[in-house]
Amino acid sequence: MPQKEEIAFWFTNLQNQICTALEQLDGKEQFAAENWTREGGGGGCSKVILNGGVIEKGGVNFSEVFGLLPPVVAQAFKLPQGMHFFATGVSVVLHPHNPHMPIIHMNVRYFEISDGVYWFGGGIDLTPHYIIAEDARYFHENLQRVCNKHNPQYYPRFKQWADNYFFIAHRNETRGIGGIFFDQLSENDQQSKQDCFNFVKDTGNLFAPLYAYFVKRHAGSPFTQNQKQWQLIRRSRYVEFNLVYDKGTKFGLDTNGRTESILMSMPPQASWPYNFQPAAGSPEAHTLQLLKKDIDWVNYPCP
Amino acid sequence: MPQKEEIAFWFTNLQNQICTALEQLDGKEQFAAENWTREGGGGGCSKVILNGGVIEKGGVNFSEVFGLLPPVVAQAFKLPQGMHFFATGVSVVLHPHNPHMPIIHMNVRYFEISDGVYWFGGGIDLTPHYIIAEDARYFHENLQRVCNKHNPQYYPRFKQWADNYFFIAHRNETRGIGGIFFDQLSENDQQSKQDCFNFVKDTGNLFAPLYAYFVKRHAGSPFTQNQKQWQLIRRSRYVEFNLVYDKGTKFGLDTNGRTESILMSMPPQASWPYNFQPAAGSPEAHTLQLLKKDIDWVNYPCP
Repeated sequence: MPQKEEIAFWFTNLQNQICTALEQLDGKEQFAAENWTREGGGGGCSKVILNGGVIEKGGVNFSEVFGLLPPVVAQAFKLPQGMHFFATGVSVVLHPHNPHMPIIHMNVRYFEISDGVYWFGGGIDLTPHYIIAEDARYFHENLQRVCNKHNPQYYPRFKQWADNYFFIAHRNETRGIGGIFFDQLSENDQQSKQDCFNFVKDTGNLFAPLYAYFVKRHAGSPFTQNQKQWQLIRRSRYVEFNLVYDKGTKFGLDTNGRTESILMSMPPQASWPYNFQPAAGSPEAHTLQLLKKDIDWVNYPCP
Repeated sequence: MPQKEEIAFWFTNLQNQICTALEQLDGKEQFAAENWTREGGGGGCSKVILNGGVIEKGGVNFSEVFGLLPPVVAQAFKLPQGMHFFATGVSVVLHPHNPHMPIIHMNVRYFEISDGVYWFGGGIDLTPHYIIAEDARYFHENLQRVCNKHNPQYYPRFKQWADNYFFIAHRNETRGIGGIFFDQLSENDQQSKQDCFNFVKDTGNLFAPLYAYFVKRHAGSPFTQNQKQWQLIRRSRYVEFNLVYDKGTKFGLDTNGRTESILMSMPPQASWPYNFQPAAGSPEAHTLQLLKKDIDWVNYPCP
């Protein structure tokens, strides 16, 4: 049965592998690493790439934090006060220069509390500034394939979970085209702890090849100033989601994590024009119409 | 005793007076008004000014909403479920072009629930991109003067309340130089409902002359691209405060208010460079050092 040390060690390796792959894809800049420690226990390593060839701002963070479970977190998880916890994970958010490239997010995490309760969580989701059906299908097909390797119920369940989780309620729109999201995954009659960990590993390993696909297709596409402006508006919705709804961000801020690492997900720039409405029939309006839950992207008709 | 209709009526007048005053100060653009209704009861009028001579993006919002108290709000206020509420208020946030001009926020509000419980709330606070001691002193002296007209305990209490409220915990910095903030103000042995309302009126009426002072002093000051960039960073902290901590924003989003009116406070642009640290001894570093609670601005030494 994998212990927390083994899981954390695998996560640090994942961080390194992803950074190496992203540096090759970016072709210009390298990640800068910063280690940090957390008052109360643990710490992490933030790896950041800025003003690259493809990536305008990106972070690949590893953390391993432990200690007394902060009261506000205990309350949120409906756990008794005074327990100890251990949490480790890798989190990636990449903001590309090119508005035809999507924003991508991946996270794998492991959480354990002192009475032996543990769970895994994770997910990958995509936030295209411009939704392209063919890309969305490719993305979801790959997630489905990896899920099906482990459990045929995973993809439908985790796809729906992502639709519900990455939802900006006050805008009545999803953050992007979703992906998979799962939490509190632990052993049961059908799966061992090792099975859970294996699924988490496959999720983490899928990230780099998926991103490679988008770089190859879109990183060199020409774009206009209006498309860049639209990107800044979509980024502002990303900010709204992360600061208002995202549980990982909230957990990080509540546990006195390193602010600049937690808010690595913030875009380099964002824009909030008042009450922006894209022109009817425009690609921007088309994208807005597709920011909905429950779209079956795997079977979505592609032109 | 002022009834809710009288209070709401006074608030609509305040909105109009502030807009008229701001249009004169701005000298270029006028406010555009948009009326909206709320599913569940009530509505409001958003007045927005964009790309003005002084103001890059500003909103002066009036709202009057009522109906069944949303469960999540009842819980937050520790009220029983199933009650009716009435809430009215005026809210102002102005983002200027010039980084030497501060961001300013004012809010006055009245809240009532069906069993006859009511309270007033409000405040004015200032978020300079560059803190200038003389301005900060002028600002706080005026707040103190208005408070002292009503109750000598108001200024010290409400100044501290603002320091604690407008605080970005995850950055360990205040949003700006504070001001006054008060909530749940209602009648007691010392003051009638009319007294409370009179104080709220004086708070509202102070807004326009205060802003005039800053326009006169700073709206025409020359600035550099680096100063503009610093403004975008300070704006990102403003976004963080409003989306993570601000109770008015949360209340608005939770009660299905009009999103574009609630998020009127978002800046036109904002920037999150990674781990920005101003050079030691720079004006930016000086400002960061002054983003602290408990600075006695009224008695702060001015050069």
